[in-house]
Amino acid sequence: MTYQLTVVYGQPDDPAAFDAHYESTHAPLAAKVPGLLAYTSHKADPAPDGSPADHYLVATLTFADRESFQSGFGGPEGQAAARDVPNFATGGASLLSGEVTTYV
Amino acid sequence: MTYQLTVVYGQPDDPAAFDAHYESTHAPLAAKVPGLLAYTSHKADPAPDGSPADHYLVATLTFADRESFQSGFGGPEGQAAARDVPNFATGGASLLSGEVTTYV
Repeated sequence: MTYQLTVVYGQPDDPAAFDAHYESTHAPLAAKVPGLLAYTSHKADPAPDGSPADHYLVATLTFADRESFQSGFGGPEGQAAARDVPNFATGGASLLSGEVTTYV
Repeated sequence: MTYQLTVVYGQPDDPAAFDAHYESTHAPLAAKVPGLLAYTSHKADPAPDGSPADHYLVATLTFADRESFQSGFGGPEGQAAARDVPNFATGGASLLSGEVTTYV
């Protein structure tokens, strides 16, 4: 049983500025959160019909369990990462977290 | 480099009916998609202040690359899984897919 935080970012006003801040500042801050077992992101490609996706970027962060997640984000590294989100997430961000069920 | 499909489901009209259909029918269909390397889901716990999350469930599906993803979802198993989504996703579903960047 692991615990996952999924962050879904809306389309930003300036995608290049979002990308620059995410790679140079936000990802390094988030990567320092204690207890983080894995951290990846992916952008959302256009649909097969070419229409843009309804969100911009998805980040997937994995912890051993809910306690590790809460402890990690409650500490100074987690708070620093959380405080940085408004600096670049001009399209908003949904933070979704819960225990993981594995199918494959 | 892997390729990830993230499916973000909105709050359904009837969570118990969503859960029953997802576990008994949808997850088994999705698990059959060729090329699927990993498939997990998590619900979205309430925020620390107790307010409900703005989405219900997140599914994370991993493929070796974009070609494997497109081939898997273009085939009969992928089409069967896609056709099943309207049967239970009464709160809507966002399909977001792209190449994965790994930080941790």
